[in-house]
Amino acid sequence: MGLEYDGSAFLGWQVQRQQPTIQGTVEQALARVADHDLRVTVCGRTDTGVHALCQVAHFDTEARRSERSWVLGVNSHLPASLSVLWVREVDESFHARFSAFARTYRYVILNRWIRPALHARYVAWCRQPLDAGRMHEAAQCLLGEHDFSAFRAAGCQARHAVRDLQRIEVRRAGSRVEFEVTANGFLYHMVRNLAGSLMAVGRGERDADWLSAVLAGRDRNQAAPTAPSEGLYFVGARFPTEYGLPPGEVEFPRGTDGS
Amino acid sequence: MGLEYDGSAFLGWQVQRQQPTIQGTVEQALARVADHDLRVTVCGRTDTGVHALCQVAHFDTEARRSERSWVLGVNSHLPASLSVLWVREVDESFHARFSAFARTYRYVILNRWIRPALHARYVAWCRQPLDAGRMHEAAQCLLGEHDFSAFRAAGCQARHAVRDLQRIEVRRAGSRVEFEVTANGFLYHMVRNLAGSLMAVGRGERDADWLSAVLAGRDRNQAAPTAPSEGLYFVGARFPTEYGLPPGEVEFPRGTDGS
Repeated sequence: MGLEYDGSAFLGWQVQRQQPTIQGTVEQALARVADHDLRVTVCGRTDTGVHALCQVAHFDTEARRSERSWVLGVNSHLPASLSVLWVREVDESFHARFSAFARTYRYVILNRWIRPALHARYVAWCRQPLDAGRMHEAAQCLLGEHDFSAFRAAGCQARHAVRDLQRIEVRRAGSRVEFEVTANGFLYHMVRNLAGSLMAVGRGERDADWLSAVLAGRDRNQAAPTAPSEGLYFVGARFPTEYGLPPGEVEFPRGTDGS
Repeated sequence: MGLEYDGSAFLGWQVQRQQPTIQGTVEQALARVADHDLRVTVCGRTDTGVHALCQVAHFDTEARRSERSWVLGVNSHLPASLSVLWVREVDESFHARFSAFARTYRYVILNRWIRPALHARYVAWCRQPLDAGRMHEAAQCLLGEHDFSAFRAAGCQARHAVRDLQRIEVRRAGSRVEFEVTANGFLYHMVRNLAGSLMAVGRGERDADWLSAVLAGRDRNQAAPTAPSEGLYFVGARFPTEYGLPPGEVEFPRGTDGS
């Protein structure tokens, strides 16, 4: 299933004693439609405040419903800050986490000296001018397979810190600076740590050589502080085409006007 | 002064018994900085739920503060959903409402069969597919000077309904359909009424001839229902260049890093 959510309404993905979490909310709604309890496994766990444009998750069920019935049924039991975008039946080989071969995150910064009044929960704010071109150039040293320990938060449960970074782009659109990164996987707080260090480069406090040295040093204490969660979006993930999952953007279902 | 605000946090612009309104909130913050009570006059009054990217308002004061001090001082007394973008000193001939010769509104529609979970307070939702090209073409009949009584809500206080519509554009970007319109002025609910009728055209329920006939008929009952407020943004206004007001987008102040 594909999920869109407003991270500011939840205490992150994972079920925990404190509520509401996205996982807990989705599992309760699914149980109402499936008529049995079930567990949901996610592609990329997100923290409190982190949004998703198309998170992917899977669950096992014996219930027989049309894909359309799953979507409409589950959405009718979800709060306004969480929507199921699509549901596809897949075979047992599919795993939302292990079948994904690429994940994309976006980090959105409002870059002006006045704080955001509109969309305040959806952007990070940087009051010092950022040079997006300089950030983009510096970021290219991160491409390829590296040990990203320098951008890995304490508490990360991954077995190793090597990730293959396939694309990283920083661009400015008016007063917004957007940073988008695709990799086979990410470490805990890796995107927010990259964003923090790229912002230090964008402000002119640091240069591209510093970023290379931080990466090579594999020491979290050398990188800049973690950037805030509200600018971060899980954009989507790529899976083998054999599963027939929809692309990121939600389209109208075929042969229906959606009414 | 230029103002950005999240309309969902306020009961519209105008001071009234029920609080909070944008006008009341701005006047209280200004009074703290000016050390005297004052009244604020706005370019385009907005209803509950309607947002502003750059609303323009003026006030008279004897207080002497730098433009930077006004901005920082007033923002320090405003809630997070309302920001002063800039302040400029102008002579007495300036009037936020009467000096503006053009105003621009934008209407943003999320057009997909799944309701919005992200940015839900910032978009209208239309679940039936919209043909943006058809909407754009039909809208061009509205260009120029017309009596817009067909799109004027009850309770409108304007003396007459003739407005000069200078630009109207409908475009699609992914699952969003955006509609932007510039005129010398607007009637009460005029943009939301235009949006409602254009959506009827976009869904294929009505055609361009119908829209022309509705305009010519000058009868509000012939047009489609009013579209919801949350998709509507006051984008900005144009004033004679002699006043030296900033363009819409907020830039960093000259000679400072904004810190």
